Amino acid sequence: MADVLQVTAPADFHVHLRQGELSKLVTPHVYQGGFHLAYVMPNLKPPITNTDQALEYQAQLKSIDDRVEYLMTLYLSPELTPEEIRKAKKNGIAGVKSYPRGVTTNSDGGIESYDAYDAVFKAMEEEDIVLNLHGEVPSDASNNICVLNAEETFLPHLVKLHTKFPRLRIVLEHATTRAAIETVKSLGDTVACTITAHHLAITVDDWAGQSYHFCKPVAKYPNDRQALRDVIKEGHPRFFLGSDSAPHHTLAKSTASPTDPCAAGVYTSPILLPLVAHLLESFGALDKLENFVSGHGRRFYQSTAGFAPKKVRLRRSTSLVEKEWTLGDQTVVPFWAGKNIGWEIAQPE
Amino acid sequence: MADVLQVTAPADFHVHLRQGELSKLVTPHVYQGGFHLAYVMPNLKPPITNTDQALEYQAQLKSIDDRVEYLMTLYLSPELTPEEIRKAKKNGIAGVKSYPRGVTTNSDGGIESYDAYDAVFKAMEEEDIVLNLHGEVPSDASNNICVLNAEETFLPHLVKLHTKFPRLRIVLEHATTRAAIETVKSLGDTVACTITAHHLAITVDDWAGQSYHFCKPVAKYPNDRQALRDVIKEGHPRFFLGSDSAPHHTLAKSTASPTDPCAAGVYTSPILLPLVAHLLESFGALDKLENFVSGHGRRFYQSTAGFAPKKVRLRRSTSLVEKEWTLGDQTVVPFWAGKNIGWEIAQPE
Repeated sequence: MADVLQVTAPADFHVHLRQGELSKLVTPHVYQGGFHLAYVMPNLKPPITNTDQALEYQAQLKSIDDRVEYLMTLYLSPELTPEEIRKAKKNGIAGVKSYPRGVTTNSDGGIESYDAYDAVFKAMEEEDIVLNLHGEVPSDASNNICVLNAEETFLPHLVKLHTKFPRLRIVLEHATTRAAIETVKSLGDTVACTITAHHLAITVDDWAGQSYHFCKPVAKYPNDRQALRDVIKEGHPRFFLGSDSAPHHTLAKSTASPTDPCAAGVYTSPILLPLVAHLLESFGALDKLENFVSGHGRRFYQSTAGFAPKKVRLRRSTSLVEKEWTLGDQTVVPFWAGKNIGWEIAQPE
Repeated sequence: MADVLQVTAPADFHVHLRQGELSKLVTPHVYQGGFHLAYVMPNLKPPITNTDQALEYQAQLKSIDDRVEYLMTLYLSPELTPEEIRKAKKNGIAGVKSYPRGVTTNSDGGIESYDAYDAVFKAMEEEDIVLNLHGEVPSDASNNICVLNAEETFLPHLVKLHTKFPRLRIVLEHATTRAAIETVKSLGDTVACTITAHHLAITVDDWAGQSYHFCKPVAKYPNDRQALRDVIKEGHPRFFLGSDSAPHHTLAKSTASPTDPCAAGVYTSPILLPLVAHLLESFGALDKLENFVSGHGRRFYQSTAGFAPKKVRLRRSTSLVEKEWTLGDQTVVPFWAGKNIGWEIAQPE
């Protein structure tokens, strides 16, 4: 059993870096958590819907912490045009994120049907910009759709998009179900899938009554978690880490109100690489660590950003995860607060 | 559309009345919520495992509020003997409650296998004491068992018990799934089933990130909720109200800790009859109200306790549910706090 690990240029292909004071608190945690590349989600208020906004946001993030490369995304909305896609490509924007309306944080402007976006997807396919899908349909009790089957119900949309735009690179984000894993595996090489750290750890039992473990998509059945673990253990090249690390102020996570639910999101950035190492080791996949957190994703994205081959070293640890992180009036609580992970970053570059 | 309803002697066949100061706060809420009979759960600390304890607890409840009849239950545990069952019957104890170990509040002493209890069940069958089942198996990730399928996985145990003790009256408590409804319907007249008010209202989406709606069993899929509504609308005589009203101090409900889940339970007692009327009306079953909250349960339990035919009158209302109830250092938040139910009790007897 190795006591030291080396990982080349870890890349987190799905992360929320927020705005304002919260952004100042959490953005440096990407590097602290062992990562040199952050694929940044656009669900701000207002959402990042065009290239100029994305570049401005990227500059803000760089001014907070320039040790990390930020790959930027646009929020799919009716504002987005084929012309904007071409402009985005010229300016290094990496992807476009689609949120079904209302299913997660700041998704009120999300899309309801993909049919209106054929021209945009065509332009994305031509320009080779990635489409990132939050793969859930909105809940609809009359059709028995709820948070538990929202992802599985979405999968036919993924298949349809891939069939219609076979050269469009698509990433199904934060898969949580066996059905999603099997569907992605069944599709062509232009379709990949991110998996979070926390969905490798928790099931529905862990967020039942535990708001700090509540996120969207919600963690599902033990068999679903097993499917996520198995596809990593198998070393499938189209599956890689996207942490979906999603910080919220601790007051928004502890449910204080009997009427409103808490914010959805699990925060893993500051402990991400040690946590992933710990989890992969727990199910016998530690040898897949480097490809899962770096190689597979970088190859799919054809990305060498931040790649100048920096290695991150991990060593065995008995220290405990910090209970919270604070800056000004912002406080965030990390996943596994107060617990031992078993690994720590030995040397940050 | 009627503006006034009359219900004869409402009976809540599953309620938690707690101990100490909390009991003083919540016990009067049974009557306030429109009910004249409370079938009282034995999961105290320590649990009520014998007749003497049950009678002492009953006396405490009467001293708090003597307007309600309290039917008492014992907690199934290795301490329980056939002799104790006979003593319990002589002293008016109505039932024995079985909790699978570890699945809900104060269930650490719950049972792991029914085989050891054959002699006790035989005595219960002979004495005609009811067996109340918390119908969930403990979670077991290696067998894909979690809070979502814990009830369905339990059902074969119910079938087996009924087959082995066909004259033993059994109540499957707080059913939440279509599978449970169908199983109970398929069994003989000695098997009945309680349904809570809150499971007629909420699905998994409502407790995702909302700890005040977290209870055991957890609310399931929309189709499951529909099955509960349908069996009431059908007027099936072996299905009746057991609120499982389960008060916890509000600090135990709002998840303050990143490590520990909140307490499981939804508190409906103070608003119970208006709430049930509202919900039944919402799915076109208001004409089934009296049988659901009184007739069916009383006939199954052969109970006329508190029955001296008092009627409770409900009238239309625009007032809002209280946001909390407090006594001394105890504060509880009711279901639907701050919302309008549409009915209120016009005259408490």
